[in-house]
Formats: sequence, structure tokens, C-alpha cells
Amino acid sequence: MISFMNDYSECAHPLILKNLAEHCYEQNEGYGMDRHCKAASDLIRSYIGNVEVDIHFLNGGTQANLTVLSAMLRPFDAVIATERSHINTHETGAIEGCGHKVLSMPGEDGKLTREDIREAVQFHTTEHMVHPAAVYISDTTEIGSVYTKQELTAIREVCNEYGLLLFLDGARLGSALASSANDLTLRDLAWLTDVFTIGGTKNGALAGEAVVISNSLIQKDFRFYMKHHGALNAKGFILGMQFETLFRDRLYFQLAEHANELAEQIKDACVSAGFPFLTRPVSNQIFPVVDNETIKRLQKDFAFEIWEPADDSHQIIRFVTSWAMREEQVQKLVEAIRRKN
Amino acid sequence: MISFMNDYSECAHPLILKNLAEHCYEQNEGYGMDRHCKAASDLIRSYIGNVEVDIHFLNGGTQANLTVLSAMLRPFDAVIATERSHINTHETGAIEGCGHKVLSMPGEDGKLTREDIREAVQFHTTEHMVHPAAVYISDTTEIGSVYTKQELTAIREVCNEYGLLLFLDGARLGSALASSANDLTLRDLAWLTDVFTIGGTKNGALAGEAVVISNSLIQKDFRFYMKHHGALNAKGFILGMQFETLFRDRLYFQLAEHANELAEQIKDACVSAGFPFLTRPVSNQIFPVVDNETIKRLQKDFAFEIWEPADDSHQIIRFVTSWAMREEQVQKLVEAIRRKN
Amino acid sequence: MISFMNDYSECAHPLILKNLAEHCYEQNEGYGMDRHCKAASDLIRSYIGNVEVDIHFLNGGTQANLTVLSAMLRPFDAVIATERSHINTHETGAIEGCGHKVLSMPGEDGKLTREDIREAVQFHTTEHMVHPAAVYISDTTEIGSVYTKQELTAIREVCNEYGLLLFLDGARLGSALASSANDLTLRDLAWLTDVFTIGGTKNGALAGEAVVISNSLIQKDFRFYMKHHGALNAKGFILGMQFETLFRDRLYFQLAEHANELAEQIKDACVSAGFPFLTRPVSNQIFPVVDNETIKRLQKDFAFEIWEPADDSHQIIRFVTSWAMREEQVQKLVEAIRRKN
Amino acid sequence: MISFMNDYSECAHPLILKNLAEHCYEQNEGYGMDRHCKAASDLIRSYIGNVEVDIHFLNGGTQANLTVLSAMLRPFDAVIATERSHINTHETGAIEGCGHKVLSMPGEDGKLTREDIREAVQFHTTEHMVHPAAVYISDTTEIGSVYTKQELTAIREVCNEYGLLLFLDGARLGSALASSANDLTLRDLAWLTDVFTIGGTKNGALAGEAVVISNSLIQKDFRFYMKHHGALNAKGFILGMQFETLFRDRLYFQLAEHANELAEQIKDACVSAGFPFLTRPVSNQIFPVVDNETIKRLQKDFAFEIWEPADDSHQIIRFVTSWAMREEQVQKLVEAIRRKN
Repeated sequence: MISFMNDYSECAHPLILKNLAEHCYEQNEGYGMDRHCKAASDLIRSYIGNVEVDIHFLNGGTQANLTVLSAMLRPFDAVIATERSHINTHETGAIEGCGHKVLSMPGEDGKLTREDIREAVQFHTTEHMVHPAAVYISDTTEIGSVYTKQELTAIREVCNEYGLLLFLDGARLGSALASSANDLTLRDLAWLTDVFTIGGTKNGALAGEAVVISNSLIQKDFRFYMKHHGALNAKGFILGMQFETLFRDRLYFQLAEHANELAEQIKDACVSAGFPFLTRPVSNQIFPVVDNETIKRLQKDFAFEIWEPADDSHQIIRFVTSWAMREEQVQKLVEAIRRKN
Repeated sequence: MISFMNDYSECAHPLILKNLAEHCYEQNEGYGMDRHCKAASDLIRSYIGNVEVDIHFLNGGTQANLTVLSAMLRPFDAVIATERSHINTHETGAIEGCGHKVLSMPGEDGKLTREDIREAVQFHTTEHMVHPAAVYISDTTEIGSVYTKQELTAIREVCNEYGLLLFLDGARLGSALASSANDLTLRDLAWLTDVFTIGGTKNGALAGEAVVISNSLIQKDFRFYMKHHGALNAKGFILGMQFETLFRDRLYFQLAEHANELAEQIKDACVSAGFPFLTRPVSNQIFPVVDNETIKRLQKDFAFEIWEPADDSHQIIRFVTSWAMREEQVQKLVEAIRRKN
Repeated sequence: MISFMNDYSECAHPLILKNLAEHCYEQNEGYGMDRHCKAASDLIRSYIGNVEVDIHFLNGGTQANLTVLSAMLRPFDAVIATERSHINTHETGAIEGCGHKVLSMPGEDGKLTREDIREAVQFHTTEHMVHPAAVYISDTTEIGSVYTKQELTAIREVCNEYGLLLFLDGARLGSALASSANDLTLRDLAWLTDVFTIGGTKNGALAGEAVVISNSLIQKDFRFYMKHHGALNAKGFILGMQFETLFRDRLYFQLAEHANELAEQIKDACVSAGFPFLTRPVSNQIFPVVDNETIKRLQKDFAFEIWEPADDSHQIIRFVTSWAMREEQVQKLVEAIRRKN
Repeated sequence: MISFMNDYSECAHPLILKNLAEHCYEQNEGYGMDRHCKAASDLIRSYIGNVEVDIHFLNGGTQANLTVLSAMLRPFDAVIATERSHINTHETGAIEGCGHKVLSMPGEDGKLTREDIREAVQFHTTEHMVHPAAVYISDTTEIGSVYTKQELTAIREVCNEYGLLLFLDGARLGSALASSANDLTLRDLAWLTDVFTIGGTKNGALAGEAVVISNSLIQKDFRFYMKHHGALNAKGFILGMQFETLFRDRLYFQLAEHANELAEQIKDACVSAGFPFLTRPVSNQIFPVVDNETIKRLQKDFAFEIWEPADDSHQIIRFVTSWAMREEQVQKLVEAIRRKN
């Protein structure tokens, strides 16, 4: 059984484990004040240029999201996001747990639009309603689509117009940046957002999300927010060592490119098999619409998620590829799909 | 410079890194539903006997504390702890961040007493005050002392008398169990507490705390609490793999014994040097009272924490030993201390 | 200028002020433990029959809603409500401020349906999502519609099916019970809901909502929740005295009947004038669709709310009548509307 | 039975009820935007001079405290207060419910000292601990003592030194300002604090606390905080009408003077009877130390609170006088006390 369920099934890239092993007995400062966190930050900063960003390393996506939004919002402030965004549906009320409403908007192709934001702001006009104060987007989105530079710039402009903070959740940022549909760089993200994250968990690390903060007001006391939410690791250097490895010699980008290429092969097979897609497949998640019989046949050898029903005889399914997946595993799936013809 | 600052300076025991490396490309279930978490739980359960406990693996101490107490308390419920307990002074308001008051009591030798609990409960009598609903203790305590079975049993009894839940924070449980002053076992802890943790971060793991839940009411929806607080890791198996290694062949206990033995050597040197102690040194943290001149001399070659002033010419300092420390490192400190004579 | 803006513009019914004045210097127990709160509870209970309900008096609607829902929900629990419900749009994130997500569903004619509830529950299946645990409805609804006994029974059944608590916000319950479309009694409400409120603020009181709790689990520590949220009044007897007056000799019902009858007169005028309605007008709030010219003309002498645009030349407006409004005030509006013809 | 239990036993001063009755059917703007709230604010402002303060009217003390502190503190910020302060012991965790730690300090004679504040700030030095950001005091204190201008100025100075906000809870401010030991004015309070409250509940109103905000940063969005915590009353004008009455013709001060004078008479009787006091009696709460026999005798005709045991045969008791109490009621108590001799 080969799993295409997700991109967090495997342990970590060997180079990461090697870096940890090499510093096994080295004594480090605690709580992220060590040289590895500094080196990893400097490496990431080198991609961003001379923007003065602060970088912190957290354990996972939900933790990063709740800590960042907690730092962005006052009790009555709300965050605007798409209906199917991770913070709205798949974080067990973590943002509400910090006291904040998630204002859910329809979005388009999984992406939040300028119009969504405008509508949410214009509806909330008085102290009888929450005050929209931040925008949350993710790149790639929940359905694998990616933002273009033009789209992100448009969102930034509407944020500026209404005094909103912009937070981009990059749990799958590697795959986004490696997408054929992408024209954004880390430098662009640092300029266009107030905070964005670079996901390690789904791209080669044991775990870890780098939180990149451009906005100096949010930089100021961010470590207090981290500790307050249980997100300040005693052994912060473990996360530092991993991002050090990922951003030295472009490993982070190579792993994402690898995953995207494998997804491309599956996509080609789906196209050949005549499967339509929920949305244009451009990253390491693809969502073909497949007939029930084929699904049943594929399930014998492959694990994947049934996303949602399409019609009586078809379902939308999800294939996810990862940094760890090998060409031959994908080939088996490709052959199985093509067998249909 | 050799550091005796803390026990979370070094990466992880080589056997742990080896276990991770061996399963580098293995595909695992996400979110702690994998075979490694199961194996680690079974190994821990084998020490506990046939008590039906649930075991979850979280990232760190503050995260474990806030998640457990959040699961134990209703909005108006409070937790009783010593004044200098970690939750009261060193978690940046994480428990209050979940809405709950920490009722701080003086304690004795770093330990909460039956009388502390009784007093806290008896003071809070009406709906105009918080309702004491849980007791938090840590073993070892903040000053390295340990609970005896008699003391813990006494606390359990007063908890039963007043309907309080009992939570033992075992961030340094390894050192406690390996202490010459200890007569508790993991089995005792499972019987005497509602929840306790087994700290990995400070005893050989990259990071990780095992949360052991005996109380079935708290077992029921604990994964919801984890996710709600950002404590449900996509790659839960990374933590599972580590505890699997720690509890196979007693590694967890051996590492703690090693740390305690090294602390014992430092203690002996301090005794020879005529240094008194803040409290009887029985674990991997010892707190000698040292004159300022000696402190200055030691600081040239060794890092350690100045705990608090004793008098005009003396300070209480803290030496912490760890699983990773080598005999020869400790010998250098021992010699430096003895040089005084 | 006569105001039809809302039903909380006027002070309080003279009988209420008289009752307060008569007991001006009487010494009462504090915090709602007085004889007036008891008498008021007994009077309300007499309408409910022998159901064992607990009754508390709070200051206002948002306070009542957040206190009740806080008592119903654990941190990861969510409440199901319509999109335009008061808790979802007009309480400035008060429910989220208590840590809970409001799951908003479309509803029908302002009312939550059995299907809404079913859909919300079925979408939330795992610990990665919030857990729907309660249902919030209001009677009358935000657009003045009312629930029938059949509709409320259907909601109760689906709540039972899924283990959900049911909370009915009766900020305008007087008008609902006095509606021609209503077939529910206070007794029905006590049987069909876990908690419901009887709004005094909008029906003759200075302020005050009676919270009626049927569910014994929520009864138990409700006063702790009240105090925790700043809702336990030192002078609880002030609220008790008011509800004593309202429920002695059916004053509460008479005031609501009066308001509804006045609304009926306005409705008749609107029908004569050929205005359609947003929804069937059955309570003290009516929502005619009126052309801009007429609106402009009416605004010279009358205050009312512009609810939302209907088309380029028409708007939906809201007329609210109250217990305090006099026949002749309404006649003036009626004449102004009829003048159109 | 005459009650000296507290100062919130009676309804409201007749002039207040008269003002309400006179405007019984007047139509007012909702949510505190009415002319009565404006008039009341202007009257209070006239005592303060030309300081630009914002004034809001809330329902009660706990509500005012939690709303103000919520507006002052970020999630990891803490408030410094005395151990026995209302927010620390008698608000059922309301401040913690908003996510904030109360840092309790010993105080002196019920009052927080400059040294308390200094010590609390100096203990909290890093992001591993909460950040002291505000100081909470009450005047009169829990034991009836009052702050002098010199003491309050000293507290302000240490607040300025450390960047702390200062909040004075004036639930019994009337009695404080009318105390023989007082040299503060409303004008001083507005200059020396960031926020203070003027308690109506315990000084003649049905209920209500005026929140006076000098600090423009806290002024800005305070109505959002009010609504978020359920403290924005639909009929805000009810509170406005009451403070209008209290501050027209100095009624507020007269009522407090009356209560203090009655307390003075009881104090004189206690002195004659040879009773010592917990603290110097200077306001409407006095705390004599009385032998058990006398207590038993007094309890036959008078209700009062047993505060805490003094020794085996004596207890500290509390007599509270109020605006509503009549001379002859107090005379009966005075006679009963004197009978001892």
C-alpha cells in the first residue's frame, strides 16, 4: 500500500537528521537564542533581501496560526478568511479559543478575493459588531491553488485601504513557490504581508514552521505571545538546526520541486484518463474527479483521501505527493490510473 | 566553557536519532494515530501495570500544562499550586490565558502540602470566588526536591476529600524517579494522580512530554483539547518514535540515573568545600550557597545560573546536570570547586 | 419626531417604577437571594407548571447569551445559529470572547431549520474540527418571525438525536408569545429547551432578562458563571422587583399584546399602500419594502431604521412598536402611510 | 432586625426614582448615545475641570473591572493588586477569564504601596513570565481605608517609572471622598489615574458605575470592549438618568457624607466600649474587634458580617452604613453597643 494521503507521513530528510546527529552533544542556549536559530534566520533572510524581518520557529501550523493571530488582534477584532480555510474549519476553534471571530467569506478557487475582504469590512460598521482587523490566506490553498503576485498585491492594497494586517499561512509554501503557476518570491512575501510562515513540517522537516514577521509592531513582543501559548520551545535549536539544513543549498526548494514534479506526473495520467479536476492542478495536491469503480480499484494498492462527492457515480479525490516520495511509487499509481484507458 | 545552566542544552540521545533515521522514509498515519505512538504507549503502560491509562505525546511542558489544565477546569475553576511553581511564575500567564486562576500557596521545601490545599479550599466558599478544582504539583520540584509516596498519598487523600483533580508535572520525572529520596514508581503515579507527564525534553529526547491520563473523564475528549490548543502534531509519530526508544530497554531511567550521579559528584564537592544548600540535593538540580569570590572564579570556566542572593557576600547558585554530560566535564567542575579548600 | 426605531427607547412601565418606589428603603439580601427574585421566579414558574426550573435575572441580552453559552460549552464546543443571528453578527464577538465558535447556517425566514442543524453536525466529524454542542435560536427572530410549536419540536428532536443543548433567546419573547402566528406557551418552552430567556428590556422593564433553566446540569453552577462574567448584580432584587411586577396580573403579556396590535395597524396601512414585506409581519417588528420617495417623506416626521436595499428605487425599512407607544402616535404614522394612495 | 451587612441592601434614592418616572415615556437613543448620559457626563466633567475625559456607564463593579482591565492588557500582560483586592479574591476569576494574571502583593493597611509595585515589576523580567502592565487599587479599600493624595501620587510616579497603567476602582468612591482621611478630589483622580470608576450601586443608584477614562489610548475603542463583554446596555439612558440625578446638586456627595457620619457614630460607640479596630475607621465600613458574647447579643437585633477570627474569644466584625440608613436605626445599634459598659 502506497500512501498519497498527505505530505506529513514520513520522518525527515536524511540531511536534517545528519545535522542533528552531528551536533548531538553540543551545548546550546535554550529557547531559540542559539546559533542555529540565528544561522537559519540569516539564511532565510538572505532570500528576502535587506528587509528587516524577525524570524521565529514554531512547532506546527495551528500553533503558528493561533500565536500570530493572537498577536495581531485585540479581543473584539476579527480575522477575514475563506469558508474552507484551515483556521475556519480544521483547527478545532483554536482562533476562537484565543477570543477572536473568524469572518468566513466564499472565496474563489480556494483563494480569498479583494471583493471578499471589501464586503466583510463594509458589513462591520459599528461597535455592535466585531472589527475586522486582519486577513488570513494560505498559499497553497486548501485545494492546492496558488496566489499570483497580482492577486496578492491586490489583497495588500485593500488591506492598506482598510488598515488590515495580512497574514499568509505557508504550511505548504514550498509547493506554492515551486508551482508553475507561481510568480512570487520570499522577498515578495516579506514585502506584501505583515507575517507569513514557511512550513517545514510538510516539506522535509521533522516538524517546524518559520514565522517571518515584517511588521515591527508585531515583532516587538512576539516571544511573549509564543510563551503564553506554549509555543516557545526549551530546545528551540532543534527547529533552528532543521531550517538551517533546509535553507542551506536550496534544499527546501528542491524538495518542493520534487513533490510538485511527481504530482505533475499523476496529473498527466489523470488527464490521459479523462478525469476532470476540482481546480487546476498546480501544486503537490491534486483533486481529480473519478468514477466510483476506478476509485475502488485504486484503493486496493493506494491510500488517498475521498474529498467530497461529485455526483452519484463520481467523487472528488485527493492525491498528495511529498518530498519523500520516490519516482517508482508514483509510477505505480500512474500505471494504475492509465490502465483505465 | 562547560554549561551547567540546564538539562535542555543538548540535542538528543544517539539512539533516538538512530530510530528516526531508520524510519526516515516509512509512511505513517498522521496526528499520533501511528504504530510508533502505540508502541511507545504500550511500553509506558507496561511499567504502569494493567491500569487503563491513555497516553498522548505533546511538544513541551507549558503546552502540556495548559492543555491538561484546560481539560480539567471549567471557566470559574482554579488550580492550586505553590507560589514558585512553573505554572504560577514561568509560563507567561498560559494558564490564565485559558481563563483559569492559579491559587498560589507557600509550600514547603518546594512541595505543596496537604495543609496548603486544605487552606486554599477552605478559603473559597461561595460563587463570589473561584472554585478550586485541581491541584498541580511537579516532581522534581522547581528546586530539585522530590515527593515521597507518603507525601503524594497524603495529597491524593485531601484531593479525594474535596473532589479535586490531581495533576503531576513530570518535566523532570526521570530525575525524580532516579533520586535516592524517591520511593514512587510510574505505577504509583498512575494510581495516585488523575494525569501526570513524563518529560522527554529534559531527559534525552529532541522534545516531547508524554501525558498519562488515568481519569476516564479527562481521557474522553483530550484530543479535542490538544487540537484546540495547537498541540496535536501532524507528525505525531516523531514523538512516538522518541518515547519508543526511551522506554525500550530502560533508556529513560538510565539517562536520568546518569544525570543524578553526576549531580551527586558535584554535591560531594560542594559539601567538602563547606557550601550549604538551599535544599537537600537529591536530583539533577543542586542549589549550593556560594561566596561571591568563588562564584566569580567558577564563572570563568563554567556557566550556571545565579538563583537568588543569600546574603551580602553569598548567592544561591544552581548546577544542573544532564543525560548528555560526560564524566570528565563534571570532574573539571568538581576540581574547580575543591580548589577552594 | 416619533420614533419607531426600536422597543428600548422608553424608560419603564409606571407600575414597575411604582413597585421600586414602594420598596425604596426596604433592606434586601444581596446578589439575587432576596424575596423579590424569589417571588418573581415563583410567578414565572406558575406559568410553566410543575417543571423544576431555575430562574436567574441578568442585565441584558448579550450578557445573558454569553453567560448561558459559556455554561453550555467546553472550549472546543461550538454553537449552531443562523447567519444573521444576534450572537453571530451583533454581539461584537462576545461568544468567541468566551472561546467558542458560532457555526452560522443559512436558516429560512430568519429561523434555524432542522436541516441546518443536521448539516452543521454532519460536517463536523473529528477532533480536527469544533464539536457542535448547542443550538441557539431566538423567538421572535431578527426579522420578527416566530417559531411554531411544530418547528420548535422538530428542532428539539434533532437536538436529542445529536446530543445538542437548545437555547432560545427570548429578548423579544413577549411579542413572540403574543403573535397571531404563535402556538407556544412558556410551559412548552420550558419543556422543549434547555434554557430560554424572557426579555424584560424590550417589554416594559428598565432592563433585565430572566434566564429560565430546565436542564439540571446547567442549573448546578450557573451562579458561578454569572459572577465570572460580571453578571451577578449586588442589587439583584432590582431585577426581581421588575419581573415581579411584569408577571403579576399578566402585565408582561398585556404590554406585548399592545405592541403587537399597534404593529398590526401599521401593517394594515402598509398593505393598503401596496407595500410588500421582507417576511410575513406577525410581531412588533415589521419590514415593509418602500419606495425611496415615500421613505424620504416619512422620515420628516418619523424615525425608523433602513434595514437594507431592495432594489434601485426601494428599500426594506423596519418599524418597531413598543409597550410604551400610544395609539395616537401610531395613528399619525398610519395616516402618513395611507396618504400615499 | 436592622442590617449593617452592606451598602447595597436598599433600592435607590427617591430623587432617582423620581427622575426615571418623570421621563417614563420619553423616547431616547439607545446604547448610551442619549442626552441623559451626555448630561450626566457633563456634570461629572464639571467636577473634574477641563481634563478631556470619556465617561461610560456600566452595570456593576465586576463588569466594570473586567471591561477596563480587558481594555488595558494584552494577553500576556498582568495587573498588580493587593492579595485581598476584589479582583483577586471576590470576582470568581473574572480577570483571569479575560486571560490575565492578577499579581497579588501584600499591601499595607489594605492599600497597595509603591514598594509592592516595584517588587512585582522587578520580579518579572523576561518573556518567560507575565508582563506587569497595569496597577489596580480601590478607594475605599476592602477594609475601608482610603488613599491620601500623597500615596496616590507616589503610586502614579512608580507607574510612570515602569510604564504601567493605573486603574482605581471606586465602587465606594463616595465614601472615600467624604472621608475625614481623604484629601483627593475627582479632579485629582482624573489626573492621577488612567481610568477610575465612580460607584453608584453602593451610593444611592439602582445600579451603575461611571467609568472615567483619562487615557486617550483606552478611550478610543472602549465601546467595543463594553459590547464584547456584554456591558453595553440597550437602555443606557437608565444609567445616565441616575448619574444625572446623583451629580446634580451634589446628591452623590451628600449621600456618602450621610453614610460616613452614621459610621462615625458607631465608631464612637465602639471606642467607648473599648473595642479596638482592624484598621482606623474612616469610611462607611468599620471593623471593630468584638468579644463573642457581645457579638451573640448584637446578632439578636442586628445583621452584620463576621469578617475573620481575631483570637479564641474575639472576632473582627464589619458594620456597613449606607445612604439609606436612618439616624434612629443607627442609634439603636449605638445603644446596644454602649450597653456593654
